[in-house]
Amino acid sequence: MKPILPSIAARAVQTERLRRVPDENIAELRSVGYLNALVPVQFGGSERWPGEVAEATRLLAGACTSTAWSAQLLTVHAHTIANYSARLQEEIWGTNPDALVCSSVAPIGRAEPLPGGIRLSGRYSWSSGSEQADWAILGLLLPGSAGTPEPHLAVVPRSDYTIDDVWYSMGLKGTGSQDLIVDDVFVPDYRIESMNGLNNGTSRGFGMHSAPVYRLPFAPVFAIGFAAIALGAAEAIQMLYQDRLATRVRAYTGAKVIESTPALMRLAETEHQLRTAYRLLKHDWRNLEKLADSGRLATADELVNWRTNQSYATKLCLHAADRLFEASGGGAVRDDNPMQRFWRDIHTGAAHAYSDYDVAAQTLGAHLAQVAVAGVF
Amino acid sequence: MKPILPSIAARAVQTERLRRVPDENIAELRSVGYLNALVPVQFGGSERWPGEVAEATRLLAGACTSTAWSAQLLTVHAHTIANYSARLQEEIWGTNPDALVCSSVAPIGRAEPLPGGIRLSGRYSWSSGSEQADWAILGLLLPGSAGTPEPHLAVVPRSDYTIDDVWYSMGLKGTGSQDLIVDDVFVPDYRIESMNGLNNGTSRGFGMHSAPVYRLPFAPVFAIGFAAIALGAAEAIQMLYQDRLATRVRAYTGAKVIESTPALMRLAETEHQLRTAYRLLKHDWRNLEKLADSGRLATADELVNWRTNQSYATKLCLHAADRLFEASGGGAVRDDNPMQRFWRDIHTGAAHAYSDYDVAAQTLGAHLAQVAVAGVF
Amino acid sequence: MKPILPSIAARAVQTERLRRVPDENIAELRSVGYLNALVPVQFGGSERWPGEVAEATRLLAGACTSTAWSAQLLTVHAHTIANYSARLQEEIWGTNPDALVCSSVAPIGRAEPLPGGIRLSGRYSWSSGSEQADWAILGLLLPGSAGTPEPHLAVVPRSDYTIDDVWYSMGLKGTGSQDLIVDDVFVPDYRIESMNGLNNGTSRGFGMHSAPVYRLPFAPVFAIGFAAIALGAAEAIQMLYQDRLATRVRAYTGAKVIESTPALMRLAETEHQLRTAYRLLKHDWRNLEKLADSGRLATADELVNWRTNQSYATKLCLHAADRLFEASGGGAVRDDNPMQRFWRDIHTGAAHAYSDYDVAAQTLGAHLAQVAVAGVF
Amino acid sequence: MKPILPSIAARAVQTERLRRVPDENIAELRSVGYLNALVPVQFGGSERWPGEVAEATRLLAGACTSTAWSAQLLTVHAHTIANYSARLQEEIWGTNPDALVCSSVAPIGRAEPLPGGIRLSGRYSWSSGSEQADWAILGLLLPGSAGTPEPHLAVVPRSDYTIDDVWYSMGLKGTGSQDLIVDDVFVPDYRIESMNGLNNGTSRGFGMHSAPVYRLPFAPVFAIGFAAIALGAAEAIQMLYQDRLATRVRAYTGAKVIESTPALMRLAETEHQLRTAYRLLKHDWRNLEKLADSGRLATADELVNWRTNQSYATKLCLHAADRLFEASGGGAVRDDNPMQRFWRDIHTGAAHAYSDYDVAAQTLGAHLAQVAVAGVF
Repeated sequence: MKPILPSIAARAVQTERLRRVPDENIAELRSVGYLNALVPVQFGGSERWPGEVAEATRLLAGACTSTAWSAQLLTVHAHTIANYSARLQEEIWGTNPDALVCSSVAPIGRAEPLPGGIRLSGRYSWSSGSEQADWAILGLLLPGSAGTPEPHLAVVPRSDYTIDDVWYSMGLKGTGSQDLIVDDVFVPDYRIESMNGLNNGTSRGFGMHSAPVYRLPFAPVFAIGFAAIALGAAEAIQMLYQDRLATRVRAYTGAKVIESTPALMRLAETEHQLRTAYRLLKHDWRNLEKLADSGRLATADELVNWRTNQSYATKLCLHAADRLFEASGGGAVRDDNPMQRFWRDIHTGAAHAYSDYDVAAQTLGAHLAQVAVAGVF
Repeated sequence: MKPILPSIAARAVQTERLRRVPDENIAELRSVGYLNALVPVQFGGSERWPGEVAEATRLLAGACTSTAWSAQLLTVHAHTIANYSARLQEEIWGTNPDALVCSSVAPIGRAEPLPGGIRLSGRYSWSSGSEQADWAILGLLLPGSAGTPEPHLAVVPRSDYTIDDVWYSMGLKGTGSQDLIVDDVFVPDYRIESMNGLNNGTSRGFGMHSAPVYRLPFAPVFAIGFAAIALGAAEAIQMLYQDRLATRVRAYTGAKVIESTPALMRLAETEHQLRTAYRLLKHDWRNLEKLADSGRLATADELVNWRTNQSYATKLCLHAADRLFEASGGGAVRDDNPMQRFWRDIHTGAAHAYSDYDVAAQTLGAHLAQVAVAGVF
Repeated sequence: MKPILPSIAARAVQTERLRRVPDENIAELRSVGYLNALVPVQFGGSERWPGEVAEATRLLAGACTSTAWSAQLLTVHAHTIANYSARLQEEIWGTNPDALVCSSVAPIGRAEPLPGGIRLSGRYSWSSGSEQADWAILGLLLPGSAGTPEPHLAVVPRSDYTIDDVWYSMGLKGTGSQDLIVDDVFVPDYRIESMNGLNNGTSRGFGMHSAPVYRLPFAPVFAIGFAAIALGAAEAIQMLYQDRLATRVRAYTGAKVIESTPALMRLAETEHQLRTAYRLLKHDWRNLEKLADSGRLATADELVNWRTNQSYATKLCLHAADRLFEASGGGAVRDDNPMQRFWRDIHTGAAHAYSDYDVAAQTLGAHLAQVAVAGVF
Repeated sequence: MKPILPSIAARAVQTERLRRVPDENIAELRSVGYLNALVPVQFGGSERWPGEVAEATRLLAGACTSTAWSAQLLTVHAHTIANYSARLQEEIWGTNPDALVCSSVAPIGRAEPLPGGIRLSGRYSWSSGSEQADWAILGLLLPGSAGTPEPHLAVVPRSDYTIDDVWYSMGLKGTGSQDLIVDDVFVPDYRIESMNGLNNGTSRGFGMHSAPVYRLPFAPVFAIGFAAIALGAAEAIQMLYQDRLATRVRAYTGAKVIESTPALMRLAETEHQLRTAYRLLKHDWRNLEKLADSGRLATADELVNWRTNQSYATKLCLHAADRLFEASGGGAVRDDNPMQRFWRDIHTGAAHAYSDYDVAAQTLGAHLAQVAVAGVF
């Protein structure tokens, strides 16, 4: 099989200009089985481990971070859908095993309960990969078992929403993270699940597929790509830095940078920091597999750890990248140097709510100290 | 007088697209006397203190960092020129008191000594404000008093070089920091000075103007704007962060950020860090004035301190800005949010060789430990 | 006058063993006028500026940090007392112009209101310099003007409390920061003021002395020594580090540390950090003088800034010291190397509630964001 | 078997006063098989994996860091000895399977080559556990294969050196890290090996024992305890911090610290940092086992990674501990709070040359950039 990373990397500048993932990238990712890695075998997918997807995503991010961002979301949503009702799964994949699903899960929709479903309206932002998707997963609040509002996720077909082309940003320019506009649309119950249900094995489709991967909770699989992307982009920056070391000279003095002690120390500390981030993530990815194989549900402890380790690893990668970028001199800020693109991308990705370490640290701290704290996504 | 910062700020996006400072900005800066603040009174200038220029530059950076970057360089070069031969000063300002001078001072030119001058060739990069300038100061190496090559600065008229439009960068997009191409041009001796001479009062024009400011060494005046710009841009980021605090809510939970302890602590630590940077710079600016009034030349100690304090202050401003930007969420990365522009700009400016703290720390450390070290620019 | 710092420095190890400031140190500090620098002229003092005391304290901390800690508290309390009733001032200084006052101001006392005074009981910790003091200032809560409990400070004579010898600590061993035990003691009203009153010019003695220094609020003068001590101790560590650079070789390789780039860079960054801390403090010290001369009271803004700048400066000094200590190798941890003593001392001092930057950052952040926040001491 | 950690923890203060590991601790460690974990089966040992020793050391450090420091060195030296000549092994363990070996490996000895051996003199510092040891491993330089001086290690019996009681330090007070004085002693060849030989499988005893563990190079096994100790001590600090959170109130305001957001965030970030340090170490420990089982020698890449990962992990643990200690307030600095002891100990341990990250970063950086660099221990 022809390796696809070189051609995806070669299109990275074009991807930024296009402001969405090029169709050629999608086709190539499909050709190697990336996009249906988490689709059930019953619908033609390959039922891979999320950790395998994360590893592939990490490499993909080192070729084109925008492509990695959008494509991995399109990929992991299959895991979410595989826990919805059989009827919805059939609708999505029954006639089109290549169907893709995007999302915008912050619960900002206005939902009005009706018999058999809800009416939904809202402007959903940041829907990466939306232009390639056939369906969308959208967040909203509905009364939970205790009567209080709880986050739910509704799945709606492409015909139920319009895409507003608003994605202009300093990084991840090529993700097409557009706004989806839903205007007074009916969503039947079988297309709706609560986040809690998706996390604790009480959704309609839980148990429908025999592969252990589908016993895994929604949240850690949904979010598995974010830190993997930060890692891949930071590794790309390290590679560019290291390659340039060999030839770079200082502008004013002509001194060879490779003989510069601080330059070597920055390289080393970044290497160490990325190693630790990778070990932390890798360990969690393996533990997801062990959990799936065990047949039991995730504990609160595990959910908090996966959620917050991911955010911590992203922070490590960010700082590892900053350490090299801020010592790369004037050449690194020019458009023709991919280092600045990876750096804009890693910072844009880290701005995602899910990677906010202030929130993660409060979550883990309260959990460790056994203080009651608002719900962990 | 009509305040000019609002209109310059309003043109900031346009300035990025234009990739150089708009003529309207130049006209407004001229109207308030900014551009000739360091031109000698004899040629119609106002002979202000460098510290005053730095304060104005700081404020200007908070309106449009690109404009501040280029304009302050065009301004401080007048101080350099005022230490060249009377003949050159007359050429530049004699008939055009508004003449502007850009520069590219890394000594990369190829110079061939001839009777009465040199022949010079080279591609000079990063010449900010070049499109507005009538003359350019260019770096090269010539044998010094000890026979070894020493950095010199040659001044050449606009007709002696072409501008190559290569300025595409992730930040400071509007500075027009183009390449200047000099191809086998004759530069007479009276247009050339050594950096050492400009720093230690032995250049041709030293003492020609009675204002104390012209007794100051070249280097700290030339570089006075870099940290002031970092400070101004960081303060702009802080203002945007603080303004947004009042209304921002978290995407997934709807929590009010203004009630978030980490958000308030980040604001406070940035405020403290910018305060310390400002105190450090302000103290140095005042000391420049004291030195000028004293009539003596700068000591090695002072030169090292000014050089490296500036770099340290830039680093403080950078980290102060990062602390807020990395906690500003997904909204801050969008093109319509000026925070991301200030942030790209501050990082691009900090990539300048003169702000590299690895170099500055080695310079100061060696100076303190009285270890011999390669020459400080 | 004979310089006293060398002899105080020579007693530093003995001071640690003694666990309180040696009488010789007190005598020497008295001989140079340090201890009555803030006593009113009317009682034989010299009415100096707090900033002068802070400068002297900084130098003293570089000789013996324990001595500096206790002695400066004994010194600044004179400023507090000078805002109490004339009757109390007369009691304290009338017959003994050398009387010293210690404190323990956290409001932990149990106070029972009686006609003309209160009955007070409590175990007051951390009373530095208590063994040299004739009086003690003790914290408690009493109903304020709005009826809610407000912090007050009662002044009691040595005969009203016992000293419990409990001061065993990892650093500042020589401060004698003992517990004071007050057991059901009557304190008349004229010996009690509220903290608010002492801060806003409504205490009984406000205006009694004409020197402007006594118009200054309680809090910034009371706390002026803490950051000055951190600075002095950090500067001592820097001096020891720098001295040792010249001769130190690495244990395993024999490499000369003075030729080590990281060693020089650590020195430089610490120098820069201490410079910025010093500029920040110095600026505040001068502003206190300006405020006193102005005749107006301090604004909320000024109180918050002084309070939190002090804490920020302490943090900078701590990190500046850590940067050198953690790279000083095995020799620095031996008892015969004073570096480890300064380092233990600076960390012990920074553990004081007043230097807790987590608290300070919340205070300043809330102030900047105009969020209501619990009272600033 | 009776657990030994509680009694060792209970003796921690006594251990500090004694300035060496108490005999009871040694007896207890022997009773559970810790001290002969790396002694060959042929001499009554248990031939455990170094990673198992490291895990035990980590737990031991959380009870008494001084004991862990000295005991682990006494333990790992068995691995070194098992690569010396059969004759030396017989001398040491033949009649006394419980014989212990201390060390001081910096090559500071003066060695004079003689037929069949050398004469050795020197003052060897930092010999932890020396008071319990029967033999000592001492560093010196001898001409290597290329004729240039190379580090060697000589093993000498207790009767060949005196112990100078000089161990007074700010931390690890109980390690008895004394000076060993060797005065013109003959050391026969069979008691000497080069470090290179011990690292690359060419020492006299290589292959004598069939257990794979003895195929491992000297350096990573010798140094395996340092980071494990930093981790164990940092975890102890975290446990103390977390326990105290539940009850601590702020001195001035009475606020409950457990409701303090920064306190929870510090706890979380420390937890994350220690997790990553542990994952990094654990991964290396497992790789040592894989290497041993593989039968091949270590690559240069592996040696550099093990060497520098260890130093990086120590740094992470140090900073994780600092983050909690510096926010633990005045209570944590008192002698009766074990937190300050763990903190003094972790900083003292980190001062060891082997944990100097400035050196490690230069080593790894140069290795990654393929720059020639002075030999890695």
